[in-house]
Amino acid sequence: MFEEASKGYPDTEIGLSILSGDTADVYFVRARTILEKEGLDPVVTMEVFSNGRGILCGIKEAIDLLRQAPGYDGQVWAMEEGEAFSPKEVVLRITGRYSSFGLYETAVLGMLAHSSGWATAAKQCVEAAVGAPVISFGARHVHPRVADIMDYAAIVGGCIAGSTPAGAKLAGLAPSGTMPHALILVFGDTVKAALAFDRYMPPEVPRIVLVDTFKDEVEESLRVAEALGSHLQGVRLDTPSERGRVTPSLVNEVRAHLDLAGHKQVKIVVTGGITPERITLFKEMKSPVDAFGVGSYISGASPIEFTGDIKEVDGRPVAKRGRLPGITPNPRLVRVKY
Amino acid sequence: MFEEASKGYPDTEIGLSILSGDTADVYFVRARTILEKEGLDPVVTMEVFSNGRGILCGIKEAIDLLRQAPGYDGQVWAMEEGEAFSPKEVVLRITGRYSSFGLYETAVLGMLAHSSGWATAAKQCVEAAVGAPVISFGARHVHPRVADIMDYAAIVGGCIAGSTPAGAKLAGLAPSGTMPHALILVFGDTVKAALAFDRYMPPEVPRIVLVDTFKDEVEESLRVAEALGSHLQGVRLDTPSERGRVTPSLVNEVRAHLDLAGHKQVKIVVTGGITPERITLFKEMKSPVDAFGVGSYISGASPIEFTGDIKEVDGRPVAKRGRLPGITPNPRLVRVKY
Amino acid sequence: MFEEASKGYPDTEIGLSILSGDTADVYFVRARTILEKEGLDPVVTMEVFSNGRGILCGIKEAIDLLRQAPGYDGQVWAMEEGEAFSPKEVVLRITGRYSSFGLYETAVLGMLAHSSGWATAAKQCVEAAVGAPVISFGARHVHPRVADIMDYAAIVGGCIAGSTPAGAKLAGLAPSGTMPHALILVFGDTVKAALAFDRYMPPEVPRIVLVDTFKDEVEESLRVAEALGSHLQGVRLDTPSERGRVTPSLVNEVRAHLDLAGHKQVKIVVTGGITPERITLFKEMKSPVDAFGVGSYISGASPIEFTGDIKEVDGRPVAKRGRLPGITPNPRLVRVKY
Amino acid sequence: MFEEASKGYPDTEIGLSILSGDTADVYFVRARTILEKEGLDPVVTMEVFSNGRGILCGIKEAIDLLRQAPGYDGQVWAMEEGEAFSPKEVVLRITGRYSSFGLYETAVLGMLAHSSGWATAAKQCVEAAVGAPVISFGARHVHPRVADIMDYAAIVGGCIAGSTPAGAKLAGLAPSGTMPHALILVFGDTVKAALAFDRYMPPEVPRIVLVDTFKDEVEESLRVAEALGSHLQGVRLDTPSERGRVTPSLVNEVRAHLDLAGHKQVKIVVTGGITPERITLFKEMKSPVDAFGVGSYISGASPIEFTGDIKEVDGRPVAKRGRLPGITPNPRLVRVKY
Amino acid sequence: MFEEASKGYPDTEIGLSILSGDTADVYFVRARTILEKEGLDPVVTMEVFSNGRGILCGIKEAIDLLRQAPGYDGQVWAMEEGEAFSPKEVVLRITGRYSSFGLYETAVLGMLAHSSGWATAAKQCVEAAVGAPVISFGARHVHPRVADIMDYAAIVGGCIAGSTPAGAKLAGLAPSGTMPHALILVFGDTVKAALAFDRYMPPEVPRIVLVDTFKDEVEESLRVAEALGSHLQGVRLDTPSERGRVTPSLVNEVRAHLDLAGHKQVKIVVTGGITPERITLFKEMKSPVDAFGVGSYISGASPIEFTGDIKEVDGRPVAKRGRLPGITPNPRLVRVKY
Amino acid sequence: MFEEASKGYPDTEIGLSILSGDTADVYFVRARTILEKEGLDPVVTMEVFSNGRGILCGIKEAIDLLRQAPGYDGQVWAMEEGEAFSPKEVVLRITGRYSSFGLYETAVLGMLAHSSGWATAAKQCVEAAVGAPVISFGARHVHPRVADIMDYAAIVGGCIAGSTPAGAKLAGLAPSGTMPHALILVFGDTVKAALAFDRYMPPEVPRIVLVDTFKDEVEESLRVAEALGSHLQGVRLDTPSERGRVTPSLVNEVRAHLDLAGHKQVKIVVTGGITPERITLFKEMKSPVDAFGVGSYISGASPIEFTGDIKEVDGRPVAKRGRLPGITPNPRLVRVKY
Repeated sequence: MFEEASKGYPDTEIGLSILSGDTADVYFVRARTILEKEGLDPVVTMEVFSNGRGILCGIKEAIDLLRQAPGYDGQVWAMEEGEAFSPKEVVLRITGRYSSFGLYETAVLGMLAHSSGWATAAKQCVEAAVGAPVISFGARHVHPRVADIMDYAAIVGGCIAGSTPAGAKLAGLAPSGTMPHALILVFGDTVKAALAFDRYMPPEVPRIVLVDTFKDEVEESLRVAEALGSHLQGVRLDTPSERGRVTPSLVNEVRAHLDLAGHKQVKIVVTGGITPERITLFKEMKSPVDAFGVGSYISGASPIEFTGDIKEVDGRPVAKRGRLPGITPNPRLVRVKY
Repeated sequence: MFEEASKGYPDTEIGLSILSGDTADVYFVRARTILEKEGLDPVVTMEVFSNGRGILCGIKEAIDLLRQAPGYDGQVWAMEEGEAFSPKEVVLRITGRYSSFGLYETAVLGMLAHSSGWATAAKQCVEAAVGAPVISFGARHVHPRVADIMDYAAIVGGCIAGSTPAGAKLAGLAPSGTMPHALILVFGDTVKAALAFDRYMPPEVPRIVLVDTFKDEVEESLRVAEALGSHLQGVRLDTPSERGRVTPSLVNEVRAHLDLAGHKQVKIVVTGGITPERITLFKEMKSPVDAFGVGSYISGASPIEFTGDIKEVDGRPVAKRGRLPGITPNPRLVRVKY
Repeated sequence: MFEEASKGYPDTEIGLSILSGDTADVYFVRARTILEKEGLDPVVTMEVFSNGRGILCGIKEAIDLLRQAPGYDGQVWAMEEGEAFSPKEVVLRITGRYSSFGLYETAVLGMLAHSSGWATAAKQCVEAAVGAPVISFGARHVHPRVADIMDYAAIVGGCIAGSTPAGAKLAGLAPSGTMPHALILVFGDTVKAALAFDRYMPPEVPRIVLVDTFKDEVEESLRVAEALGSHLQGVRLDTPSERGRVTPSLVNEVRAHLDLAGHKQVKIVVTGGITPERITLFKEMKSPVDAFGVGSYISGASPIEFTGDIKEVDGRPVAKRGRLPGITPNPRLVRVKY
Repeated sequence: MFEEASKGYPDTEIGLSILSGDTADVYFVRARTILEKEGLDPVVTMEVFSNGRGILCGIKEAIDLLRQAPGYDGQVWAMEEGEAFSPKEVVLRITGRYSSFGLYETAVLGMLAHSSGWATAAKQCVEAAVGAPVISFGARHVHPRVADIMDYAAIVGGCIAGSTPAGAKLAGLAPSGTMPHALILVFGDTVKAALAFDRYMPPEVPRIVLVDTFKDEVEESLRVAEALGSHLQGVRLDTPSERGRVTPSLVNEVRAHLDLAGHKQVKIVVTGGITPERITLFKEMKSPVDAFGVGSYISGASPIEFTGDIKEVDGRPVAKRGRLPGITPNPRLVRVKY
Repeated sequence: MFEEASKGYPDTEIGLSILSGDTADVYFVRARTILEKEGLDPVVTMEVFSNGRGILCGIKEAIDLLRQAPGYDGQVWAMEEGEAFSPKEVVLRITGRYSSFGLYETAVLGMLAHSSGWATAAKQCVEAAVGAPVISFGARHVHPRVADIMDYAAIVGGCIAGSTPAGAKLAGLAPSGTMPHALILVFGDTVKAALAFDRYMPPEVPRIVLVDTFKDEVEESLRVAEALGSHLQGVRLDTPSERGRVTPSLVNEVRAHLDLAGHKQVKIVVTGGITPERITLFKEMKSPVDAFGVGSYISGASPIEFTGDIKEVDGRPVAKRGRLPGITPNPRLVRVKY
Repeated sequence: MFEEASKGYPDTEIGLSILSGDTADVYFVRARTILEKEGLDPVVTMEVFSNGRGILCGIKEAIDLLRQAPGYDGQVWAMEEGEAFSPKEVVLRITGRYSSFGLYETAVLGMLAHSSGWATAAKQCVEAAVGAPVISFGARHVHPRVADIMDYAAIVGGCIAGSTPAGAKLAGLAPSGTMPHALILVFGDTVKAALAFDRYMPPEVPRIVLVDTFKDEVEESLRVAEALGSHLQGVRLDTPSERGRVTPSLVNEVRAHLDLAGHKQVKIVVTGGITPERITLFKEMKSPVDAFGVGSYISGASPIEFTGDIKEVDGRPVAKRGRLPGITPNPRLVRVKY
């Protein structure tokens, strides 16, 4: 059963401007008018595929759109959220009166393209990290209207959390985050900021302190560890590119000094320009990183293009030039329940 | 004056989930709580810049967000929508009580990142096309929630139109489009579909017919030109990659046959995998293309990362490690009126 | 026995201008004069080898030349037509009075160079095609005086046929060919030309129709298949580079439409810029190609350089600088019968 | 006038097998049969062009073929032997009854392809040599049937001579050559061979002695210069690749020793693996080379593909897909007199 | 006059093991024995050149060697210390009895090779620094026996100082240096070490403090500047590769903080993996570096090979194979006074 | 036991200027003064490592230096001369009063850097030669003060000999060498020089004759072999780059001619621009080389950088930024006996 299989994520609410076709390519709006005037409304089958490969995401939202589409009562077959797809593999097949779903081709393809792009990039990070948790930290690189969609897609791709409350809600999780540089700059001292953080945050928020704002990361880590004692759960290293980014050597050094001073329980979270290549480097050099925070590699990933082709009209196989007529078999497609 | 200068685009409505901080990185939410409990609320100055270069877009929306932000009454300096920015150049400076805008850092950066990415890619196409109009056709590659934002950004980057009604509204233009393959497949014949299109569309919709669905592009162009006569304003070539995409030779060939048959008024629009490199190729080979429709090169462009740095706290220059303390002069910044 | 082993190809007739030395490097003509005047005519042994590797071809013709050379009565050892040779491997050893064969060094080397170049290129195509037949279609890229030699060499390299009657005669086969674009252009319609072809050609000529002249390949294939019915044995796709050449996708598409319409017996022959790399691509993508026609990759192949070295003079080992004196053992050499 | 302009080369005799169509692609033979049976024989115009650029050669022979073709009485426009052509530039236009010349398409294209390939490679060497004479020495790399055609093409490309008597006759020049290694190996000593050469060769044959067979090039040059005195006109350096080929340093060294010993009149000819790149190297290093002998770079050059397209049938513009219908203007074409 | 021209560097003392031939290739020792026994002792002329290009260094020491060589009374022509030489340019010509200097070929070539290698690398740094002083800091990468020679060569190449007293003596300058990490580690605090340094060092030693040992470079610079006040002349940044090396951004940041705190007189010296490429980067980014300290780029430079050729024996031009006989004119050679 | 294990090489005498600190970085001299005045002299532990990998050499000399250092009585752990080391592996650990060895950091690192660079390059040649002996011939590319150190390092790296008497003494071997070009040029003939060499050299000096000075290598080898008969042990090929260097083909050719003439006992030594890549080429082509003489590849090798870090001060773990505090375990370190 697809619904059960879709990991229990809550339904996405589809906006009015989407349902109205306002965000569709205008030629679909026009096509609807013409066909209506001609009295043409065949049953058509559309198949959706990509020329690339990746992790499918957005399929749940696309199905929600069809469910909420007024008048649609056709049939839908789909692969599941989070599955890997191959080039030319059909991930979605829609059958129904053309008038009842033709207008949504743009929206369905866009949901799949953007979300699968993000989920695929997330999966690459997660695979490189072989076991170490990866968190999506890239909300700042996407338009806020889709920040939640992006965080959700990152989680579908394997991240354990995202940084926005809206994304977390969509994924049924708590959001993840430490503290911003801004907080420390306003306090003027990392230790003061850390103590205030510890004082006011509810117990379920992990005490992870950002330690690269004013002083050397090693020195700041030791100061914070001393000040918070056993409350301190981790430090976050976010050394900027102007200072050479976080390197495996820096993590080793912070770890060595923390251990030497008896703070073995303090975890190390690494952020700042993290990519699968850099994660692999940390792994190869056995650098003791406890978690990776990934920003633009995931949130700045290019969409993966999807195409929708009409393959049958009133039961007859058809195709435009360059495509094969008729339905493409794919045993991985599952009939969606309504 | 900034408002006047911003090309008269209508204001973007900022969603509630953005204003509530629901799409912000959660640590900004937490920072607000901590500072409030500590009673700390200094006047801070934040500067926004990128490490890359490109066309600035999203700045108008960011300003709209600050205007609509409850309680914000600081000062804003900004470069203008559509201007070219350089690495490290400050494009936006915000001064105010930290509590009144700190929460919006994620949203502001996200608006700039996504929109500037799209506008910059559009500008590259427009520059390659030296004079030939470029239309944004890529709504299908982005989530429908941002399809209008993307089309608007493409127009800021120099496109003459986008394909979605919502994007057109944002840019104060009419949407642009011809007809989808789906329409022709439903009719079963390009000429029949073209005649119906001509019959029902209002006069202001240009008669541009897609000619690669069933037959050879040359043959179909001639058939359509014969059928619609002087009504036909253009043909659109969208040959798929499986058939070698549209090439300069194909355009020459279609042009030669149309001219030989007396249809010199019919324009040629080219779409399908168009990039600045391919536009340049058409230009270098003096191929008679009348307009280019660009999809994923624009809509699939990666966001351009922006960073927000606090540079003053209650008048004192500050900076986190890696950045220079104090305000960065930029004579191109203009004070925004409220 | 070499003669028996040489696949029963008929003897090549050696032209008079070759036997007279008119096409030899003039210094060999001069050397003959000088040695004659000096009364010097030792028994010498010459060995022929290449610095490259490839498929030996032209050896039969070279032996024919020595047989037809007036006065030559020495001994010849040779590898066989069609064998693979390695760098520096001796493929031919000639012993005899220098006056009786010295003049033919240029001709012997030229026969081997040109023919082995063609045979080697053919073999590369044949190996890439793993089982699918390859036909040599490149007569138009070589001077007509050697078109037959080129076709013969292609067949030695593994092609199942060439396109010229003269080449076919040399190889003891029937020539292969379908119909030229010129025929279709003169008829003005592919179907008319195909029906005429079917009407007048003797039954042993296969009915293979060229389907890319006027209309889309898919449409034309279906029209021809309908018109000729079970007479039609195949279609030839020769899409020009201006239209993206024949691609694996196009073959799939033609195959799908032919099958859908019940013409499963119609084979697909692919031509136009075919190379081993492109053959491999068709194979890797499991494109249903039934035969490949190869032109310039074979006929435009560079000659493979051969060198002739004198290694013994009256039984004494000699060598010029850079070469080793004396006979080079090669167990693959076979004594040629006269 | 074309004939006068064609440098007075004697006519090439076209072989019977070419005139009979025996070396043509068999489909042209078949097309002739079909059209005859149908009673179709329109006046067609064929245009010949290449997709590459180069030096046109073989055009004179192609015109000779049409002149000798039984029954051809159409009109021919052509560019001239030795002219540079550009991609897609029409180099030959033939108008006439299709039955009178259709069969010769293969031969005409083959003559142009092979000869233009050789002439273009020769021109590259001649241009690199900026003034130093270049001689074609590559007969050993082509089939002896076309050795003369190759030498002729090299001369059209700018070489001052070729090595075969047959090629020389075609170009109206004397053949060029020194002495083969074989002669020296038979004599057993370079000086003995040189003295015999001087003794028996007629005075018009230049005394140029090959000096790399047995001893060091410097030593041998001095020995030969001493032995032949003022008779010696030049030495040829042909150092094999096993010994590092002829280098600019070696030429300098031979020159220095010859000059030091008072043999300033002795020229230096360089052969062995010479390419435009290596000629340029000699030139850049101001190495005192008096002439270059080029072998496989010219004779092993790939043919340049030409295509023949029917562009008019009984006055109507036509074209196959991918090409433009109707005659292509080219002011460089000259009407050929008959 | 050469001596005057040689910048007044003091003479290098040539060690006994060099004068005895103990460090010469043993075959020169043997050659001396053989020639003595044969009674052969011609006057020979040897010329020294390189196949590369660079800055000549070691020539003064080589001349000193000949001066101190027992029995040498020939003539010497030489280019000057510090001049640029080209490939094949003669930099040294020695005439004399072979017995009086033949043994020193190894030593002369070795002096030139090693010293010119270092001087050439130094010159590359100096040119990249366009005006900013460069100091040689690489003694730790060469054997201590040649540390002084290396520092001297770096100064000939344009460095303003080296780090070793012995090298400084050779160049007639004071050595340059700040303080080692070891000193700071022993003191346990940079400020304490800096104060002690200031307390005990004579006034002519510049107060330049190394600021990357324990704390962040910015923080440490400010602490040291506060502690030493106007005594502080500079800070040295030597950030290790594990921490991203010194970057242009870091220099900017240190400068900005020093200036903001009123320490505008404090200079910034940059060390650690400095190469011409990195110097150019600092220059291009207008980073306010006051001096560069270069280590292994100079001291680890490969020697530049020199060759010594005998070109005359008792007045007769000679040469070994590959070289031109007789003296090579070079107007830049100056006769050396004795 | 380290002394026993160090292959019995005699002790290196450390020069006075090294022991005095005259060749040390001046800041170590200054540090000594400051610490003395402060009365600070803790027991420190310094560890030495490289960021690269290679063959350790110079460690014996470094230990000799500490032994001869006045006042040093600490403890030393070291890896052995000739062992392979990895990046970051500690090769030397010194514990003692800082005043007793701090001054020698520059010298110790320099000894290791230069010697390990040479030994590592030698090892690469030896490994490429798989069994064929390699001789160090590069004294002419290094300053004569370190020629013996370089030859010694080459022998540690696996060479069977070096060319200088001083280097040989250091390694406890006889020096190796044939004859210089100079000797032959003075004699004016290779055979005369060879006969004199044979006449005067003691019997233990191998009769290996250089055969590329005046005549072709093959001819000269045969002349020398004839003249010296069974006395001749080998020929050395040293063909200069101007003549294409020694190639595998040339060696084959010399070998073939020597064997043909009955001089099978004569070995072939190859020199001139030999590198591991070229040795591998000779090996792959099974060229019969009996020994390789390597010059600048070994003697021109760049030093391998070593770093000395203080890791403990009076028993407390310390480290500068970028390094880990405290002692690094390495079981391969052996305690050095005093």
